[in-house]
Amino acid sequence: MSPSAPGERTGAGPGFPVVAVVGGGQLARMMQPAAVELGVGLRVLATALDESAALAVPDVRLGAHTDLGALRSVAEGAAALTFDHEHVPTEHLRALEAEGVPVRPGPAALVHAQDKVVMRRRLTDLGVPCPRWAAVDDVEALVAFGEDAGWPVVLKTPRGGYDGKGVRVLADPGAARGAQDWFDAADGPLLAEERVDFARELAVLVARSPSGQVAAWPVVETVQVDGVCSRVTAPAPGLDEDLAAEATGAALRVAGELGVTGVLAVECFETADGRVLVNELAMRPHNSGHWTQDGAATSQFEQHLRAVLDLPLGSPRARAPWTVMVNVLGSSRPDRAAEDPAQMYRSYLHVMARDPEVKVHLYGKGVRTGRKLGHVTAWGEDLDDVRARAQHAADFVAGDIDE
Amino acid sequence: MSPSAPGERTGAGPGFPVVAVVGGGQLARMMQPAAVELGVGLRVLATALDESAALAVPDVRLGAHTDLGALRSVAEGAAALTFDHEHVPTEHLRALEAEGVPVRPGPAALVHAQDKVVMRRRLTDLGVPCPRWAAVDDVEALVAFGEDAGWPVVLKTPRGGYDGKGVRVLADPGAARGAQDWFDAADGPLLAEERVDFARELAVLVARSPSGQVAAWPVVETVQVDGVCSRVTAPAPGLDEDLAAEATGAALRVAGELGVTGVLAVECFETADGRVLVNELAMRPHNSGHWTQDGAATSQFEQHLRAVLDLPLGSPRARAPWTVMVNVLGSSRPDRAAEDPAQMYRSYLHVMARDPEVKVHLYGKGVRTGRKLGHVTAWGEDLDDVRARAQHAADFVAGDIDE
Repeated sequence: MSPSAPGERTGAGPGFPVVAVVGGGQLARMMQPAAVELGVGLRVLATALDESAALAVPDVRLGAHTDLGALRSVAEGAAALTFDHEHVPTEHLRALEAEGVPVRPGPAALVHAQDKVVMRRRLTDLGVPCPRWAAVDDVEALVAFGEDAGWPVVLKTPRGGYDGKGVRVLADPGAARGAQDWFDAADGPLLAEERVDFARELAVLVARSPSGQVAAWPVVETVQVDGVCSRVTAPAPGLDEDLAAEATGAALRVAGELGVTGVLAVECFETADGRVLVNELAMRPHNSGHWTQDGAATSQFEQHLRAVLDLPLGSPRARAPWTVMVNVLGSSRPDRAAEDPAQMYRSYLHVMARDPEVKVHLYGKGVRTGRKLGHVTAWGEDLDDVRARAQHAADFVAGDIDE
Repeated sequence: MSPSAPGERTGAGPGFPVVAVVGGGQLARMMQPAAVELGVGLRVLATALDESAALAVPDVRLGAHTDLGALRSVAEGAAALTFDHEHVPTEHLRALEAEGVPVRPGPAALVHAQDKVVMRRRLTDLGVPCPRWAAVDDVEALVAFGEDAGWPVVLKTPRGGYDGKGVRVLADPGAARGAQDWFDAADGPLLAEERVDFARELAVLVARSPSGQVAAWPVVETVQVDGVCSRVTAPAPGLDEDLAAEATGAALRVAGELGVTGVLAVECFETADGRVLVNELAMRPHNSGHWTQDGAATSQFEQHLRAVLDLPLGSPRARAPWTVMVNVLGSSRPDRAAEDPAQMYRSYLHVMARDPEVKVHLYGKGVRTGRKLGHVTAWGEDLDDVRARAQHAADFVAGDIDE
């Protein structure tokens, strides 16, 4: 345990450890309430003082996640270095680890959340069900994959994609040939995958500590719109118990085999014929786990801190029969897309007045179309009611509806 | 609404309001998680950067709560000025209010939590049941009160007392005459009260917004040890429904009549013959409400922020049949009273390992005998089990027990 130095304002009491987080987005921000309650410290590497987490955390270091010196500085004396996103270069993480920094998750695990080709290879080796895939070096290989696996084909850049970016759906060989620009820009193979005709999407969230303790939250149903998480229902309604156990087992096995520390999110497809195929991995708190803030005995943010500090994990038990989380995205309505924060404050106030039981979580960001500005949770015994309340509140705060 | 100025790190998004808090203790600290989730800003007036709240909140102003200039500085541009404690001089609050600062609660209400004689007079005028009392100017008046009301008598300094300080129990006229030193030191009358032979202590927590909206949490049972809150059980077990409704009604009436804004805690005695008498008032989040962090749909810290900002109030509904909160006080054991933070970290880790469902909340303070260092909550369906788990965890973290 590395205690905080005297005079550092990290939230930690004397002798209590500090967690350093690379990235100043909302995931780092939402670790702050958990850190304050736990009495552990938080230090954030952000690129600007008005970033979501930098607004909420006293100990902010300014710098880029690609700058090894900045990474060293934020990690100094921290009991764990962890992440708001996956974009830190693997070689930097290896260098930090070699210098003795407790990088959690470590680069050997994290690379599977950074590089989709590495991830597919490893999951396939482990026998974890995935969509059909191939690492393709050129358009000809891509077309050949499509001819074999069937069209359309999903083409992904192995690194740097998120929220639907870095993903292209190719309808036929002609479209595949039109993707030459991605091959020109790539410095390695791209990932081709069959487009899974899924019944719905699921996510399995687990946490694992360096000691090997694991905990799994109930499997959730996720709804994506344009590649961005829109709504999460916990637990996934009507999910077959054996399938839930199988998906949870696979996620725990992945966490263990890859040596993940912290939260691991496994995004999956559930097919009409009752299979679960792994779509993506993320090794950090994840949008599919925001429901745990109000819906589980231990939130994903608290659990992530406990896991990376190698503290015993908390109970992942759900606190209500149903919890629903709906994202608040910046509206595309021209009259709402404008930067008018006062308008959002009025909507927020209206939502609180309409339903005293919903929880509106905001990230301190300026309004921009499509931007993740916050989320709403609701919980209760009647799924339809809970869903309707969360959806209405989120749509209203976003400005997509007026009443 | 006063939005935060650009560049201020208050946690608020653009256009969202800032709440200024006088005092850097654990109550201000525990407002920070709520503020971060709500997306509103928090600014704290503390006396040192290692105070509990100052560790957790970016925007800290250093200064004394008795310094009008410091109060003006922390309040500047804030949508509300509120409090971690009751010790701000009333004349300063009147001056701030006259200058247009939204002081919440305002001085006209707050004086009832600052001055016990003022409080007793007002509650008596309102017909709210209180212990027998008298404002006494000298020892002779005190003895006369005791002869009339019966011995022992409780003598209180009207201002400045907390956690059992400023309170003296006098067994007989001789003991009363020995209290001459308090009269010598006082600049006004002292408060004499009958010692209520209570069956147990209760607390009623309500919140009220400037618009007059109110919300009441379930009435809780509190156990004090040496004048310091030790354990809170929510709801109060076996409390007669009519009595609970009566106590809640009285608290709501007090909040309304006094014009309280924010959380009001009404500490009460329940007598063996089924009466509820008001003991003390506090106008801020209160130790008897810490259970709400894990046990209610809306925590007292979130509700206090909503109330002082005149946002619609959240649901005060309990989330479990029973929630128990036990304070973690610095141990009096010689081997634990020493400043050894690492020992507390080990205890904390042990407690998490033993019971993944308890929540340990720590305040970032150094260990000192009797100091409030944190608290533990547990919840569930079986009261005995919940109490035993919370008590064990708190005693273990404090170091009062070894297994």
